[in-house]
Amino acid sequence: MALKVLDIGEKELVRYIISRSKDITPDDTAITPFDDSNLISTTDMLIQSRHFPKNMSYFDMGFKAVTVNVSDLAAMGAEPLGFLLSIALPKDLILDHFKEIINGVLSACDFYSIPLIGGDTNEASEIIISGTALGMCDEPIMKDTANNGDLIVITGDIGFAALGFNLDDFNNIYTKRALKPIARLKEGIDIKNACATSLTDITDGLASELYEMKRENIGFMIYEEMLDIPDEYKNLADQLGFYYLDLILYVGEDFELLFTISKENLNKLNIDYRVIGEVTRSDKVEITLENGLIEEIDNKGYEHYVS
Amino acid sequence: MALKVLDIGEKELVRYIISRSKDITPDDTAITPFDDSNLISTTDMLIQSRHFPKNMSYFDMGFKAVTVNVSDLAAMGAEPLGFLLSIALPKDLILDHFKEIINGVLSACDFYSIPLIGGDTNEASEIIISGTALGMCDEPIMKDTANNGDLIVITGDIGFAALGFNLDDFNNIYTKRALKPIARLKEGIDIKNACATSLTDITDGLASELYEMKRENIGFMIYEEMLDIPDEYKNLADQLGFYYLDLILYVGEDFELLFTISKENLNKLNIDYRVIGEVTRSDKVEITLENGLIEEIDNKGYEHYVS
Repeated sequence: MALKVLDIGEKELVRYIISRSKDITPDDTAITPFDDSNLISTTDMLIQSRHFPKNMSYFDMGFKAVTVNVSDLAAMGAEPLGFLLSIALPKDLILDHFKEIINGVLSACDFYSIPLIGGDTNEASEIIISGTALGMCDEPIMKDTANNGDLIVITGDIGFAALGFNLDDFNNIYTKRALKPIARLKEGIDIKNACATSLTDITDGLASELYEMKRENIGFMIYEEMLDIPDEYKNLADQLGFYYLDLILYVGEDFELLFTISKENLNKLNIDYRVIGEVTRSDKVEITLENGLIEEIDNKGYEHYVS
Repeated sequence: MALKVLDIGEKELVRYIISRSKDITPDDTAITPFDDSNLISTTDMLIQSRHFPKNMSYFDMGFKAVTVNVSDLAAMGAEPLGFLLSIALPKDLILDHFKEIINGVLSACDFYSIPLIGGDTNEASEIIISGTALGMCDEPIMKDTANNGDLIVITGDIGFAALGFNLDDFNNIYTKRALKPIARLKEGIDIKNACATSLTDITDGLASELYEMKRENIGFMIYEEMLDIPDEYKNLADQLGFYYLDLILYVGEDFELLFTISKENLNKLNIDYRVIGEVTRSDKVEITLENGLIEEIDNKGYEHYVS
């Protein structure tokens, strides 16, 4: 029987595209030399049935469509230049709901100081929002350039969105994070200026991003203790039938930044951050649990197509 | 009853977005100052059920997704910089069909000398291809800057795709144009260098584009004779129950360029072109028919949502 796209998974499809073009940067974002600087560009499509929880407002859909793209600029340490919006709508969508989506887009553009420079509409059977974020960066930071001995650092709590997607109660920090994540754009620029050695944003989960950052003879050791997971978080995960570390390691959608930096440069950072581990020569991605045991982290994360 | 998006039509939705952002250029393409030049960016989404005829190959879908975006660069006289692809696929799509789409994208990128710099995949219930074309241009040409007395010029035959969409036979120039339109990228640069006064690409039909080019106290007179419509074209349209001028004026999808230029500068053009009329002070968009009668051209064209 002929192979179908679900048989190989989204990451393999992307790898196929990358393998076919010599011009694609092996990162999530394109880097194009432009005059004396670099143009940074990235595009991401959000589809209602896959990316928007049922309880998400139209405003938050628009806001998130900007956030997911701006987060890719943040992951390069880029300054924002402009945002392009291409949106497809069911023809029976209430006009005011369309306007709420646009309000969300504009509110996010304002929040991130990235001007909305283009917009296009289309018809589809569900809401589809495709965004393109453009930025500028003299020296973009790549994700796979960590050095042995560097510290592994994140910009905030991770796993909150993963938990929030599973909670019915709206009025908690987890659901708020799931419905309205914020990209760490200013932090990305600060991290670049502090001479971090590698940088990415956490979209598909910590595990998945660490494997993307890995290269030969480089390993990562995360310390559970340093993740500083609230007891409330562990209890809520348990009540929902999840192992809390699975939510933290393998889901993502928080849009926090993950980076490596030398111990000497850590004090150059002007942002809130949390050291969660260190870069090793182990060639493995591992976690030291609170009980002292060391476990290898699986190379898996949120992925379309694969069930 | 609450208004729905189908009640106002796609162009009104786009106008709403434009009215809400002070940073959107009133053209189809965004212009962002970048160092000493301008970054030109544009995004367009193609949806299988709306934009791809049933007899279109997967290869041609990929090719067209590049063409529609590159055509917007051509309409500015811009040099190509890079193309970003975001594609959503049904999970049961045959893998080889996905690869054919990518072959089409890469073949088009090669044809237009625009590198594929980024790619992303997603899951949806039908094939959706969203592209972003990036370009560079020191002095982009706008669409609404024609001068009285200029000539109105096109780069090739128009209306061929409109006819081709309605023919069952594949082996004719009309269907070929419908299934594999070509953007006039090199011609756009040549037109800019010849000091054309205004420029756009014909996507929604000649009538619609002329109204987009119009401003107060400026009018356009098209001469049917100059359109040089083949008898075969008229006959085929008639057999299908269409008035041939409706196909030529109100459909589009040929991706030819439409521009205005002074009589003096016409000989600076190094491309094939056809003069079809002249810019007047009439404040109207008109056509002189072959029988000598003058008719006003309606302000209508291909538009989503409105039935």
